[in-house]
Amino acid sequence: MDLREQLLKLTEIGIALSSERNVNNLLDLILAHARNFTSAEAGTLFTREGDNLRFQVTQNDVLSERLGSGNTGRFLRDKTVPITKTSLSGFTASTGEVLNIPDAYSIPSSSEYHFNDEYDRKNNYRTRSLLVVPMKKPNGEVIGVLQLINARDGKGQIVAFHGDFERLVLSMASQAAVALSNALLTLDLKQAYLDTIMRLAIAAEFRDTDTAVHIRRMSMYSAAIAEAMGYSPDGVEQILYAAPMHDIGKIGVSDRILLKPGKLTDEEFAEMKKHTTIGAAILEGAEAPVLKLSHEIALAHHEKWDGSGYPYGKKAEDIPITARIVAVADVFDALSSVRCYKPAMPFDKAVAMIKEGAGKHFDPACVTAFEKALPKITQIYREYSDETGAMHKLTGAMPVLSRP
Amino acid sequence: MDLREQLLKLTEIGIALSSERNVNNLLDLILAHARNFTSAEAGTLFTREGDNLRFQVTQNDVLSERLGSGNTGRFLRDKTVPITKTSLSGFTASTGEVLNIPDAYSIPSSSEYHFNDEYDRKNNYRTRSLLVVPMKKPNGEVIGVLQLINARDGKGQIVAFHGDFERLVLSMASQAAVALSNALLTLDLKQAYLDTIMRLAIAAEFRDTDTAVHIRRMSMYSAAIAEAMGYSPDGVEQILYAAPMHDIGKIGVSDRILLKPGKLTDEEFAEMKKHTTIGAAILEGAEAPVLKLSHEIALAHHEKWDGSGYPYGKKAEDIPITARIVAVADVFDALSSVRCYKPAMPFDKAVAMIKEGAGKHFDPACVTAFEKALPKITQIYREYSDETGAMHKLTGAMPVLSRP
Repeated sequence: MDLREQLLKLTEIGIALSSERNVNNLLDLILAHARNFTSAEAGTLFTREGDNLRFQVTQNDVLSERLGSGNTGRFLRDKTVPITKTSLSGFTASTGEVLNIPDAYSIPSSSEYHFNDEYDRKNNYRTRSLLVVPMKKPNGEVIGVLQLINARDGKGQIVAFHGDFERLVLSMASQAAVALSNALLTLDLKQAYLDTIMRLAIAAEFRDTDTAVHIRRMSMYSAAIAEAMGYSPDGVEQILYAAPMHDIGKIGVSDRILLKPGKLTDEEFAEMKKHTTIGAAILEGAEAPVLKLSHEIALAHHEKWDGSGYPYGKKAEDIPITARIVAVADVFDALSSVRCYKPAMPFDKAVAMIKEGAGKHFDPACVTAFEKALPKITQIYREYSDETGAMHKLTGAMPVLSRP
Repeated sequence: MDLREQLLKLTEIGIALSSERNVNNLLDLILAHARNFTSAEAGTLFTREGDNLRFQVTQNDVLSERLGSGNTGRFLRDKTVPITKTSLSGFTASTGEVLNIPDAYSIPSSSEYHFNDEYDRKNNYRTRSLLVVPMKKPNGEVIGVLQLINARDGKGQIVAFHGDFERLVLSMASQAAVALSNALLTLDLKQAYLDTIMRLAIAAEFRDTDTAVHIRRMSMYSAAIAEAMGYSPDGVEQILYAAPMHDIGKIGVSDRILLKPGKLTDEEFAEMKKHTTIGAAILEGAEAPVLKLSHEIALAHHEKWDGSGYPYGKKAEDIPITARIVAVADVFDALSSVRCYKPAMPFDKAVAMIKEGAGKHFDPACVTAFEKALPKITQIYREYSDETGAMHKLTGAMPVLSRP
């Protein structure tokens, strides 16, 4: 084994891992690189959760060839095992030591740890050599375990893992540990951000007839439409973050008008319309990209494609695309849900109304995207119906951003 | 040079860089590791800003020994240079190539790039060997340049940089580029988060007599007190993020009471007090640590140390420490600033009032910390006076989180 070459490869792997910010992709990538690096036929990546290890990724070239499935399996995903020194991964998780085992079925019975052959029996598979490596952060904390299975030599024969790999994969696993904990921190931060925006947007509409579910649903509808229009995952996420604040300006409209039960007079309606410009004032001059989007959405989500909207009577492409998307989502949710002053319109009827508005109220391209996104929109409509309205439920983690 | 050893070191440096999440520390660390790795006596780290390079860190062992200053200088910090192929760093930034120059003063005049001796002349220093390396992301984008100066051999003699370093430092600089772009992304996300919280908290108090400056000032006072109590930088940051939402529940109090000019009746005051429990309801059940803090602060920031506060009349340590800190900051700002119903109390008088409240209204430990933090509090008081009240100014980046 050319150690120099391996070391150079290691540095490149480190860079690749640090660059991947999506947690699920990163978990797959860590295991794939570790297996490729050691020519291991199979492997499992566990992450630590308190006193347990969670199966995150299992890859097995032999089984996936046999079963004709993809390279990566997550079939054990929901399984956790308690960390005890009697299992191989548990031993490594609790001691931080590497285990290099030439044959899983020849571990002396006097040994503290034992091989669990359940996986082999269930899958008609034969584990031989094993390299079990802790994913250790620089402070010594073990946040996961890599279990590499069946090293192959140049001729495809299963052999023991080369002793040099112990140190090298340990180093790789440390890089992986740092990359993973960075990605998880970013994910936590994003989720806290989204949760905060949702709660504050809901709070700001506390006095309004609209409910928390409305804000959540219309934000998710907006994201679904953006996705159908070909936005990148980042772009879709930005819409999801920006849309909740579309009505933030209602905070500046007085109780007398906002809570009035009957129809508004012309003068009162003119006051109500100001929620667009007040919202824009609140979000004026922000530097963060997501707040810039919120700003244009708050200002222009009541403009109409044919120029008959407010506050400025802008037309067609003069209206920001984000606001055109949100207009469809906002109206669709208003139509298809119950309000204190009206019953809900049936789903199909509401869809038909949106289609009818294409070229008049709405950008035709947004309506096309809305139609394309109907399967997803139907799913959101069902999952977040008005009955599931407890606020703490509504503001939990969004499915698009779920932790692995 | 033992390449294997160097490669192992490189991997460790990669781990160290990925682990550092503070951008300023990271910049120092990148240059320090690169110099240490190549035994360079001095060096400069530039980051790319559009068509310019910004001086970020300069380290020079010889000058800092001579001047008796610390190891790291940032004296050129505000300087940028346009990226052109005529300067060494500009050449590397635009071509992505490494320059290994044995003697800065012997670059042939036919060469595209030239050495600028301004730094040498100003500091009475002599640059000889140079290694100029691009900090390149995996997509090829150059986000910075490392300029390493005067390699020393084992005897302390200045020599040319070993050819092997070209590839090694290039690899290190790639790791640095990824670590830096990750840290900057996290910083951007945090700033967007803070900006959003501020704006929404301000929006939620739109109808109230309190101003945007109040929310900002009292949050910064709270952070200053927490710092004086020995909170970690992360802990201080959490208080800074959590405090703005202390009065979010006012959103649920009607205009009639919130905007009433005169004194409230007992019944009206009872309604007003509900802003604590309404705020808690809005923030109930959040998973994000910062929102958990916001929740306890919203609920308990009107409790008093002696049990005479509301909503529950909690006493002493039964009141969460965060709420005890915020109580001091909130009252101090209310006293020392103008409200529509009262003039501002002079700064010293307001400080005296807080001291007087120790053991009655306030936790004595928080008052001690408040006194300890007075220099910082004075600074905040001056910088964010009521006159500088334009909202877009107030919600810009917080100094504690400033980009490098």
